Amino acid sequence: MKNQLYIYNTLSRKKELFKSITPNRVGLYVCGPTVYGDPHLGHARPAITFDLLTRLLTYLDYKVRYVRNITDVGHLENDGDEGEDKIAKKAKLEELEPMEVVHYYTERYHDYMSKLNVKSPSIEPRASGHIIEQIEVIKSIINKGYAYESNGSVYFDVKKYNQDHPYGILSGRKVEDLMNNTRALDGQSEKRDALDFALWKKAAPEHIMRWPSEWSDGFPGWHLECSAMSKKYLGKEFDIHGGGMDLLFPHHECEIAQSTIDNGKSPARYWMHNNMITIGGQKMGKSLGNFITLEEFFTGNHDKLERAYSPMTIRFFILQAHYRSTLDFGNEALQAAEKGLNKLMDAMNNLEQLVTSKESDVDVKALKEKCLTAICDDLNSPILIANLFEGVKIINSVLAGKQKISEEDLVYFKDLMHAFVYDILGLEVETSQDAGNDEKLDEVIHLLLNMRTEAKANKDWAMADKIRDELQNLGFIIKDGAEGATWELK
Amino acid sequence: MKNQLYIYNTLSRKKELFKSITPNRVGLYVCGPTVYGDPHLGHARPAITFDLLTRLLTYLDYKVRYVRNITDVGHLENDGDEGEDKIAKKAKLEELEPMEVVHYYTERYHDYMSKLNVKSPSIEPRASGHIIEQIEVIKSIINKGYAYESNGSVYFDVKKYNQDHPYGILSGRKVEDLMNNTRALDGQSEKRDALDFALWKKAAPEHIMRWPSEWSDGFPGWHLECSAMSKKYLGKEFDIHGGGMDLLFPHHECEIAQSTIDNGKSPARYWMHNNMITIGGQKMGKSLGNFITLEEFFTGNHDKLERAYSPMTIRFFILQAHYRSTLDFGNEALQAAEKGLNKLMDAMNNLEQLVTSKESDVDVKALKEKCLTAICDDLNSPILIANLFEGVKIINSVLAGKQKISEEDLVYFKDLMHAFVYDILGLEVETSQDAGNDEKLDEVIHLLLNMRTEAKANKDWAMADKIRDELQNLGFIIKDGAEGATWELK
Repeated sequence: MKNQLYIYNTLSRKKELFKSITPNRVGLYVCGPTVYGDPHLGHARPAITFDLLTRLLTYLDYKVRYVRNITDVGHLENDGDEGEDKIAKKAKLEELEPMEVVHYYTERYHDYMSKLNVKSPSIEPRASGHIIEQIEVIKSIINKGYAYESNGSVYFDVKKYNQDHPYGILSGRKVEDLMNNTRALDGQSEKRDALDFALWKKAAPEHIMRWPSEWSDGFPGWHLECSAMSKKYLGKEFDIHGGGMDLLFPHHECEIAQSTIDNGKSPARYWMHNNMITIGGQKMGKSLGNFITLEEFFTGNHDKLERAYSPMTIRFFILQAHYRSTLDFGNEALQAAEKGLNKLMDAMNNLEQLVTSKESDVDVKALKEKCLTAICDDLNSPILIANLFEGVKIINSVLAGKQKISEEDLVYFKDLMHAFVYDILGLEVETSQDAGNDEKLDEVIHLLLNMRTEAKANKDWAMADKIRDELQNLGFIIKDGAEGATWELK
Repeated sequence: MKNQLYIYNTLSRKKELFKSITPNRVGLYVCGPTVYGDPHLGHARPAITFDLLTRLLTYLDYKVRYVRNITDVGHLENDGDEGEDKIAKKAKLEELEPMEVVHYYTERYHDYMSKLNVKSPSIEPRASGHIIEQIEVIKSIINKGYAYESNGSVYFDVKKYNQDHPYGILSGRKVEDLMNNTRALDGQSEKRDALDFALWKKAAPEHIMRWPSEWSDGFPGWHLECSAMSKKYLGKEFDIHGGGMDLLFPHHECEIAQSTIDNGKSPARYWMHNNMITIGGQKMGKSLGNFITLEEFFTGNHDKLERAYSPMTIRFFILQAHYRSTLDFGNEALQAAEKGLNKLMDAMNNLEQLVTSKESDVDVKALKEKCLTAICDDLNSPILIANLFEGVKIINSVLAGKQKISEEDLVYFKDLMHAFVYDILGLEVETSQDAGNDEKLDEVIHLLLNMRTEAKANKDWAMADKIRDELQNLGFIIKDGAEGATWELK
């Protein structure tokens, strides 16, 4: 029987038993990246969180349609950034057509997600590819009286919405408080109210990304794409909407308002938000300028990094924290994660070597139960990992002959460890390009270098020179240093 | 100074000197895949042909904006297939949302093109993402009087166009002949004339992919996307339009007609068409059911394949034929290509080991001239490859001490071989996972094994045993055989 899954629903602020709208099927929408910069640690967390969710749902026999969008137009940080489209701005800086910027960074994002073993979603719609669908939503909202045109732009009327719908339902904010905290911004005079947000923006003459509409040549507001695309691919009402906590307000709040008017109902039954990655307590993000890119992590090429960390180390580091906790970046924490990961993966390797006995004195069924309960409790990956380390203990204990396992139990045990480590947590054996043989190569060369040291000690200069020369002929550069000889490839 | 590039222009049916519209910049549009099936050899040829062109243009110091589309909607093989959209049909078969099919096969296409070392284009627009742009082109053509609405669909009026424009200019077909050869098809009664082609099709009720328009809820005709997207990303007039010969008629002919009316001028200055890959003389294609996928080539898992062929073997096989010749598939030809490729790549490896002399009796400048002339003569890759084999002869001859090369010439020689083999032909050393360091590892171990053999010869048994023992400690198994010692990893 399937295990019951509990999810913390931001909408109700409590853990709820998950029930899908259609039996055995799940519609999941997650806010994807704005493709105007290199993928960084802040991108890795939502991607890994909802990859974990998808993997778990699949394990629980759901068929998942996972839609994760690409924001390639119209990302206004707030309505004060009138027309300052992040992608168009980047294109200006790099003197490229905006879609060249989009193409480049979308590919980078895909490459790095793939390194992190994040599975590709089922559909990856782009905002720029769904203008017509967004225009249809705007028309529907205008027809229902909740949006107005002003000088070629169209705004959502938050005050009117709030009269008969709870604006702030997701974030717990109150319109009255928001109004008191909003100062009048330049260029906002088109709006009836400072809280109103753009559904359509008239493009300034120099704005490259623009489409015709009945209101103006312009572009959609940022919040709109998710309402239009989730409806198109998942329907008016779907199961789960996910995203980073930073998107909760105003993005998701606005999405709910738009979709509620457009479709007569709230779009998603469950809202899930992963917490932020921080550096010294501050959110890591491109707009804050304190981010470390995934490439920098994998190469170690950044001031704040003591050395390189592999993709699986980053994945494990993220999974070791519960997705709703903040996760503070630090070399020490990363190195601890790496150590833990190595211990786990070494045990997975040893698992394949275990010898069975006639009897068993391990309780693998209880272990599976504990693992499943942990991960089905709102994706509690840190508890799951702690349980898997009990599995590690069993492996090492059987290996050392201190405990016994029967053949039947071993089959069950392997199944459960494979399912949780590989399928659900999505960890994989890392053979970083050549890493396996790099290590062997290093060992063999050091064998030769040690022979050379010995030869020198024995005053066998001919032998010492021969070893150095032969290695040089093979393309190795040998450097003698205070701490012994090192080598590199030419 | 830049070399002059000659291109066979399908439009003029002759080789022409290439001149770009904007100095040092080239706008290139190539028809990409319809993503409803796994990438096969028929996809590899246009991708590699226009990759070669882009690499050459880059080598010649042009900045290239390369746009290659993804056809993800509205691919009607001919207007007889009313509404039988290939992707929607596939989705029905697989019970998926069409965009899931699109996403899956687009990723497969990307993966396999990457294995073939085909560079990603600058922009990869999707038909479904440019509905609004296509609707704008239809409106413009209707306004100019060259298209008419009929029962919610819109058709291009070929007869009217042909009165003042030469329909058939690209393919050399005559409207009169075409009309005599066209039989009336079922469901074509909406059209004024059998030659007219769809710009917009009203969607049947069960048709999933549909968008609103002033004519009907429907979808664009296949030819339209390229007119709309090339205009958007390259302008009304651009340099080169490429594609497979099978697209020449009706697809490209219709594109010219549409764009000419929309923009008042023919879209591309140069039209380039790669010829087909055949099996026993018949075109290889999904619609013909005789295709071999790239995955099948790389694994050898297909009846017609004697064994697996590597991505670079496939690339070299394609480059060994001129792009305007047909290329017949066969195991013998592939094995010959593989042999040729190995010979070339071995020589490239030897090139790095060459020892220089004070004098030179090789003429590397003449060789470069010949190479450049060949590839600038309408991408004559087979002649270029023949010239590169003269380079191989030089390498082997210098290596054998039969010819001499000066340091200056060697630098020049390396530059030219690298440029043509790696940068322009896009061949790369194939290091099947770890192969690179496997080789180094093998070399270093053999160094140790040779030292052991010497030690034995010198009756230095202690040293001989030490080497064997230390290698065994590192996990290597050493086997002494008639032909010397071999090793493997435990």
